Amino acid sequence: MKLYDWNGAPNPRRAVIFIKEKGLDIPLIDVGVKGALLSDDYLASGAQGLVPTLELDDGTRIGEAMAICRYLESLYPEPPLMGIDALDRARVDMWERRADMEGIGAVGELFRNSHPAFAGRGLPGRTERIEQIPELIARGRARMGWFFDKFDAQIGNNEFVTGERFTVADITALCVTDFALSACKVEIPEACGNFRRWHQEVSARASAKPSNNTNER
Amino acid sequence: MKLYDWNGAPNPRRAVIFIKEKGLDIPLIDVGVKGALLSDDYLASGAQGLVPTLELDDGTRIGEAMAICRYLESLYPEPPLMGIDALDRARVDMWERRADMEGIGAVGELFRNSHPAFAGRGLPGRTERIEQIPELIARGRARMGWFFDKFDAQIGNNEFVTGERFTVADITALCVTDFALSACKVEIPEACGNFRRWHQEVSARASAKPSNNTNER
Repeated sequence: MKLYDWNGAPNPRRAVIFIKEKGLDIPLIDVGVKGALLSDDYLASGAQGLVPTLELDDGTRIGEAMAICRYLESLYPEPPLMGIDALDRARVDMWERRADMEGIGAVGELFRNSHPAFAGRGLPGRTERIEQIPELIARGRARMGWFFDKFDAQIGNNEFVTGERFTVADITALCVTDFALSACKVEIPEACGNFRRWHQEVSARASAKPSNNTNER
Repeated sequence: MKLYDWNGAPNPRRAVIFIKEKGLDIPLIDVGVKGALLSDDYLASGAQGLVPTLELDDGTRIGEAMAICRYLESLYPEPPLMGIDALDRARVDMWERRADMEGIGAVGELFRNSHPAFAGRGLPGRTERIEQIPELIARGRARMGWFFDKFDAQIGNNEFVTGERFTVADITALCVTDFALSACKVEIPEACGNFRRWHQEVSARASAKPSNNTNER
């Protein structure tokens, strides 16, 4: 297996952290090139213009971060990162979806519509020109605030997003947050003390450290 | 158990069709009220202003359509609607996510930003005034076209989205399509013959028929 990554982008990082938490040795292939683009080879390979993609040894490809995580969770159940019983799995899935829709949705809207390198590329995964929409910058910033508030309330006094176990809900929320902080000049509000404490703790995990990606090959 | 529904909305319909395909007898509680709003009681109940919500007999609530489906799939595995082995589960999850992000994302953008009843309510799940953004109407319409093209190619000669079995990927794609057709004056492009054939076939299933919801109580 190998994982096609775009070093620094929040979506592939979800799969990268998952792989590290499982202790798996899966090569990471960086398909990003200058100008914040994916390489022509990768785009031509039928990967739908999106990362991450997990490629199996027989060439089968799995796209979408959570589909990749679910596949690896089946093959390598320990440690469980997607819940331990029916209700826990539902809770993890619910909060992971919220981190995705409300967090990655927000930061993507803010970033894609404001960064000069993404002029004419207002949505991922397409080759047509898609204009940036300036109104989405302020809306994306407001949504980030709602994301912090909602997750701050959910975390409460818990160690992790869904309770006492680190899961994919933490992974997605972490990828949202780090990208918002590093690429969008967003800060975690002072009032979100639970979230700030949580962010400090999960950021200390070995899986949260930067990767040493292989160049594309 | 009971399911809080908003009759006609595409997101809760994902859970409703799933429940019918499983042959489960779970009461559907319609929490929509006039003016295309959710009822005050429901909004005050901590359901995050979103439907569907599955409420268990002990009061525990599960939000997000796919989290609800996953919970019910664990409890009632037959017939399997989320894949039958690790790779199949990943494939179903991948295509369900795409139907969600690229289909529901598109039709939601188109609908929320164009329908007069949603003026000042440009995003779901919030009580703040969120202005409609007229540029998102054309963008949402374009995204719908890309959704049809991508799923038409994926369906190909298969009976269903991921092959020979009806799954949640079909459910989400059906809910996207029916809502686009009925509420947004979108048509499935003539060129998407696989998609048109698929849509006709899945629409004939008993689970696709309108529900008899109970009023809120």
